[in-house]
Amino acid sequence: MTRTPDVVVLGGGSGGYACAIRAAQLGLAVALVESDKVGGTCLHRGCIPTKALVHAGEVAETIRDSARFGVLGTLDKIEIDRIHSYKDGVIGKLYKGLQGLVKHHGIEVVSGHGRYVGERTVEVEGERITANRAVVLATGSQPRSVPGLPIGGRVVNSDGALELTEVPARAVILGGGVIGVEFASVLASLGTEVTVVEALPRLVAAEDEWTSKQLARAFRKRGITAKTSTKLVEAVQSGDTVTVGLDSGEKIETDLLLVAVGREARTTDSGFAESGIALERGHVVVDERLRTNHDGVWAVGDIVAGLQLAHRGFQQGLYVADQIAGRDPARIDESGIPRVTYTSPEIASVGLTEAQAREKYATVTTTEYDLAGNGKSQILGTTGAVKLIRAGAGSDGGPVVGVHMVGDRISELVGEAQLIVNWNAYPEDVAALVHAHPTQAEALGEAHLALAGQPLHAHG
Amino acid sequence: MTRTPDVVVLGGGSGGYACAIRAAQLGLAVALVESDKVGGTCLHRGCIPTKALVHAGEVAETIRDSARFGVLGTLDKIEIDRIHSYKDGVIGKLYKGLQGLVKHHGIEVVSGHGRYVGERTVEVEGERITANRAVVLATGSQPRSVPGLPIGGRVVNSDGALELTEVPARAVILGGGVIGVEFASVLASLGTEVTVVEALPRLVAAEDEWTSKQLARAFRKRGITAKTSTKLVEAVQSGDTVTVGLDSGEKIETDLLLVAVGREARTTDSGFAESGIALERGHVVVDERLRTNHDGVWAVGDIVAGLQLAHRGFQQGLYVADQIAGRDPARIDESGIPRVTYTSPEIASVGLTEAQAREKYATVTTTEYDLAGNGKSQILGTTGAVKLIRAGAGSDGGPVVGVHMVGDRISELVGEAQLIVNWNAYPEDVAALVHAHPTQAEALGEAHLALAGQPLHAHG
Repeated sequence: MTRTPDVVVLGGGSGGYACAIRAAQLGLAVALVESDKVGGTCLHRGCIPTKALVHAGEVAETIRDSARFGVLGTLDKIEIDRIHSYKDGVIGKLYKGLQGLVKHHGIEVVSGHGRYVGERTVEVEGERITANRAVVLATGSQPRSVPGLPIGGRVVNSDGALELTEVPARAVILGGGVIGVEFASVLASLGTEVTVVEALPRLVAAEDEWTSKQLARAFRKRGITAKTSTKLVEAVQSGDTVTVGLDSGEKIETDLLLVAVGREARTTDSGFAESGIALERGHVVVDERLRTNHDGVWAVGDIVAGLQLAHRGFQQGLYVADQIAGRDPARIDESGIPRVTYTSPEIASVGLTEAQAREKYATVTTTEYDLAGNGKSQILGTTGAVKLIRAGAGSDGGPVVGVHMVGDRISELVGEAQLIVNWNAYPEDVAALVHAHPTQAEALGEAHLALAGQPLHAHG
Repeated sequence: MTRTPDVVVLGGGSGGYACAIRAAQLGLAVALVESDKVGGTCLHRGCIPTKALVHAGEVAETIRDSARFGVLGTLDKIEIDRIHSYKDGVIGKLYKGLQGLVKHHGIEVVSGHGRYVGERTVEVEGERITANRAVVLATGSQPRSVPGLPIGGRVVNSDGALELTEVPARAVILGGGVIGVEFASVLASLGTEVTVVEALPRLVAAEDEWTSKQLARAFRKRGITAKTSTKLVEAVQSGDTVTVGLDSGEKIETDLLLVAVGREARTTDSGFAESGIALERGHVVVDERLRTNHDGVWAVGDIVAGLQLAHRGFQQGLYVADQIAGRDPARIDESGIPRVTYTSPEIASVGLTEAQAREKYATVTTTEYDLAGNGKSQILGTTGAVKLIRAGAGSDGGPVVGVHMVGDRISELVGEAQLIVNWNAYPEDVAALVHAHPTQAEALGEAHLALAGQPLHAHG
């Protein structure tokens, strides 16, 4: 076993393993240091398990709602143990596949907690591994905690929410960002009475304001209570309940308090500061090519300030591996990375929000297309809409710079939206291609037709 | 009421009404002649009602399969009357919307059976309407019948299959094309024991051979019997059953025989031949700009030989309206029109099949990505795969010329695939954009990564 690989990747999550695989494909010898399981948060405690829960929730909603489609079903019982078995089965299968990929590429997995100690060297349980070419820091993130609000008992974070032993009758979710609203949605689907408490004035505050309004309306219809511009001031556990006190003076008794106030970069226990890696607000400082202040040391994924998304990690990992191998890949435009929130209805977006676009361009044109006009959405029974943002206006109009969508199953449309925004397509380019009927993707097509001044299934 | 409109459109289906709307948007006075309801086959007897049935079938399957997701449900009953109410509700809502659009654009709807009588003139119940500029023929299609096999009783065509008063215990479907396999899939979902009889060697013979194999395998797993290379020689109704005789000598007793042998252009009862419009094999002959042999007379939709798809009708309608208004729109590349078959699993494709690509290009490269490696597909529990076809190979490689996909919910990915093929994208162009995780669209991304020689979640 060589201990002088070309590349040492510290952390085997999305960013780390993607980097390791690409580097190996490009002929480099790679060691991947991981203290837990390769696959990281996304596979084991993030994207995959949460979306399995979301799907179980969708199945429950489908059964509850089945009579409207002429199919009479009864929701007999939700068995959380079986949901966990299903979820763990999906994780297990993907984990096995990933382990196979890592092995296939000849990547040496070093198990243990690694610390970067400078000089392109990582120390794992007393052994030092020095990279010939590069060290890639990819230690990821963990749930952020709230001072004075310890996790334990009926107060859980997202990790704990994935391992519940029962579906709570009532839950308060602290945080109306992506993680908070996803759990709010899935718990409501499973039968929980949910209250979301968010300090900011709106849910999913990183999205377009229009999106927040759409989600808030959908949540209201589903009976999910959202208390925005509201802060939690205390949480008292007593017996089987938690009493949550809000800054409005209101007290809410609940069975579960889920703290979902975001994730913090895991940069404190891997020797970064000690070895002189520059940090800022808990993130590793990088330049636009993802280089740290140490020669030959790069950083990818959630430890780099910006979107905390598995596929951003993939893309950064691939980008860094390409550079280490001597290629000159195109820089990543963070605004071109697609974003999905797996609520019911789903949220998917890529590019700029309207506010961001108005800062960047003198003139901006927007259009909205309501899913009420979309046949497939009507068949599914979903509400929602598509909003497009174009730089410029009329005959001076430029490309589409933002796509925002809300609706059941709308997440799969973000692939097309991603090409449109990243390839700087004009509405007219998309409008020329009539979409397959009946699909939800038609709504994207119709919105582009409208933005090009030629609506088909919409009033002009 | 003016009877000298600029444009007379004969037929208010997808092609006709799209043409009428665009022409009106471009300032032309339009009369739209329709003997039944605006919206045509697609809205009233085709795409929309069938996909509503498909969704009811999906709901039934979800309930049957719910325990694997930890949600215990019971499928109590399928109430076909309620399915029809749901289906008719969707149609009614979309029909109302369409009527509103037509009215909004000031299109004059002329009710009655119209006949083209030459000289840019259409006769509707004795009244003649002459177009100043153009007549657009858009009379659509109807289910093809089989000589010696009259429709009636327990022998139905697709129109009848949409109005069943009970879910048959057993059904034989004659025809394994798109319409046949869609009904086979939905009836099986609703509980029918289904046998498909197809004279050609494979199901969905217009698709890539790979696709046919994928569907055949999925149908086998679902217990749907497909008898390919098999002809029906007789069908005898007796009491409540039909006995179907095959050329293999086999006889099958069934409760319903659905004749789904395709649709024929409706070109015989609207005066086309009588007024000298050139016809060939039952279709209106057009040039590449969709002009007939009569000056100022165009044809769109199913009466034009080629794909019988509503959105092809839309696109042709818009294209013709643009030309009539004096614009010079880009010609429609028929191979760039996306195709979806709403079976379970769904089929979606755009561009060339491998066989077509091998005829056109000296070298062709293909790749396949199995949904077993796609997280979202695993969460949904669907099998399937994505196949890409690239013109050329290796460093001489050209653009992606064909995308073929099989899997539950895969239809929504065809929007992205459509952009890729129509915009002549290279695999490398798509590979540079890492897709949102976890989506099924990632499978399309991974396939492009693989085709670009840089697989991420696949063995190289």
